[in-house]
Amino acid sequence: MHLTLNDPLDMHLHLRDHEMLKITAPLSAHSFSGALIMPNIIPPVDTKQALLDYKHRIIEAIDNENFTPLMTLFFRDTYNYKFLSDMHDELTAIKLYPAGITTNSEGGVSGFDLEKLKTPLTAMSELGIPLCIHGETNGFVMDREAEFVPIYEKLATAFPQLKIIMEHITTKESVQALDRHANLYATITVHHLLITLDDVAGGMLKPHLFCKPIAKRSEDRDALIQVAVNAHPKVMFGSDSAPHPKSAKECCGCAAGIFTAPIALPLLAELFEAHDKLDNLQSFISDHAKNIYNITPPKKSVTLKKEPFDVPQSYGDIIPMRAGETLKWKIASVQ
Amino acid sequence: MHLTLNDPLDMHLHLRDHEMLKITAPLSAHSFSGALIMPNIIPPVDTKQALLDYKHRIIEAIDNENFTPLMTLFFRDTYNYKFLSDMHDELTAIKLYPAGITTNSEGGVSGFDLEKLKTPLTAMSELGIPLCIHGETNGFVMDREAEFVPIYEKLATAFPQLKIIMEHITTKESVQALDRHANLYATITVHHLLITLDDVAGGMLKPHLFCKPIAKRSEDRDALIQVAVNAHPKVMFGSDSAPHPKSAKECCGCAAGIFTAPIALPLLAELFEAHDKLDNLQSFISDHAKNIYNITPPKKSVTLKKEPFDVPQSYGDIIPMRAGETLKWKIASVQ
Repeated sequence: MHLTLNDPLDMHLHLRDHEMLKITAPLSAHSFSGALIMPNIIPPVDTKQALLDYKHRIIEAIDNENFTPLMTLFFRDTYNYKFLSDMHDELTAIKLYPAGITTNSEGGVSGFDLEKLKTPLTAMSELGIPLCIHGETNGFVMDREAEFVPIYEKLATAFPQLKIIMEHITTKESVQALDRHANLYATITVHHLLITLDDVAGGMLKPHLFCKPIAKRSEDRDALIQVAVNAHPKVMFGSDSAPHPKSAKECCGCAAGIFTAPIALPLLAELFEAHDKLDNLQSFISDHAKNIYNITPPKKSVTLKKEPFDVPQSYGDIIPMRAGETLKWKIASVQ
Repeated sequence: MHLTLNDPLDMHLHLRDHEMLKITAPLSAHSFSGALIMPNIIPPVDTKQALLDYKHRIIEAIDNENFTPLMTLFFRDTYNYKFLSDMHDELTAIKLYPAGITTNSEGGVSGFDLEKLKTPLTAMSELGIPLCIHGETNGFVMDREAEFVPIYEKLATAFPQLKIIMEHITTKESVQALDRHANLYATITVHHLLITLDDVAGGMLKPHLFCKPIAKRSEDRDALIQVAVNAHPKVMFGSDSAPHPKSAKECCGCAAGIFTAPIALPLLAELFEAHDKLDNLQSFISDHAKNIYNITPPKKSVTLKKEPFDVPQSYGDIIPMRAGETLKWKIASVQ
């Protein structure tokens, strides 16, 4: 059995920088046509020059692969129309982190005062630059995302022309918010379609399945699966693939992040097939993102074959999800 | 400032066996007068001979310390009056594990059919042997204990003469059940009085704070603190101190269990003092257990002093809770 995906897009990707970038970038570039590159490197990407430099480092790292890094800026409330219009051609979206909520998010937004946000968000509305948000409060770990939904809704109401992407959603509350506001969209990771907190901490503790937002309950996962496999047009794939060296995952205080980029397409094929919705994977993996972002990524056809794929124990020093396990689908060819 | 505790008891302790026992037993024996020793070693303690042998190994390991290991059997539904009465003098309690729920609990009880439990539980009622239960279902990790409360209540109602100890309770639901049944009691660990899931997985993932039952919400912790510091007479201290070698905690699939035995008294003094209830620590740490179990442990006075105590980075190969941190109280003398 074969499945050909056209122009697969990963609309939420952490490539990191420097030595790690040399491992991660080619892995994503191999099977994706493009990816939205998160800006929370050190220091964060918050100037045109930093963005161009990071894009250059990514393009060097992918070594002539047919792949577009869709660049993002780290949101600052000091951005204005002039600043943004000057780099508009290079910029696909702006990523907003609440302060201190995840890896390298210090310096993010700490209140959501509409007055303070008015200048940058009005400029983004006018320029048609989507706002991607890591929507979590500083509350109890299982409640953080659901508590953030009213903030998504406040922003969506105050800036109706602004496209707001609820990133890596994990709860039924976020899924429900999608249909209440025309300008709310969402990315969903492959791991949040597969695991719950039981997989992370229900048996042995699994640091390689620890991520932010943390995986929730089975009813939350079910809500995510429903909109993903049924091709909800406001939902698109974003892996949130987030590499850390093994030493930062197997230790006394382990970093959040699951590395899925090289196995995402086979995992998604397996999931969509299990729900008898293989035909809808094309929308989830590419078409919706093209529509929502108005982008035309380079042509790339990725053909998956239903044959066993042994996931490597590691990629460099990065342990992927399902390390050492066998998946049901493999990438057979890329054109 | 000084605080003297008479005959401190740890009514839920894992000493493990063999080489690890030689590390754990002296640490508990140093500052406790006695402890209820959990039977889930490999193989589980489920015969009189196994119980006597394990007790012997413990007594060898404590090297003449003034300390009583209060022995338990691993519950089997095949136990009857004759079997239990024959070892009654050596047996303080029987520990029931639902099958597969925690470390070395394979072979535990898998249904809670009153007919199957009638023979052993009636015998225990008649002989006055308390039943200690690790009360969790196989449900979602955050719900397992609350889901088990109806089983506690079913057993408490069916066997009104049986003392049932809800072990290491972590939820407000278990606290509330205490007052609904005359024959329900509870142990509480020091870590569940201090941490919530946020401490385990809200920031970095902390394998050394991963335990079963997993730490819950702040409202659950508050309910535990209230009954502990206010000296609820049916509540007693049980550390559930559960050592694992570092390699089993900092890895890709980490074992459940927090090692607190050597720091439990200083931590409790700090907590009770913070709630202005230092006077109630004696009841929680010893008096209630003596009443509930009708036991007379050896006399031992442990004097704590309010002086900084630097927790070691490890005891042998075991990383304790608060490794490398400084506590406010230390054990000044033991008599």
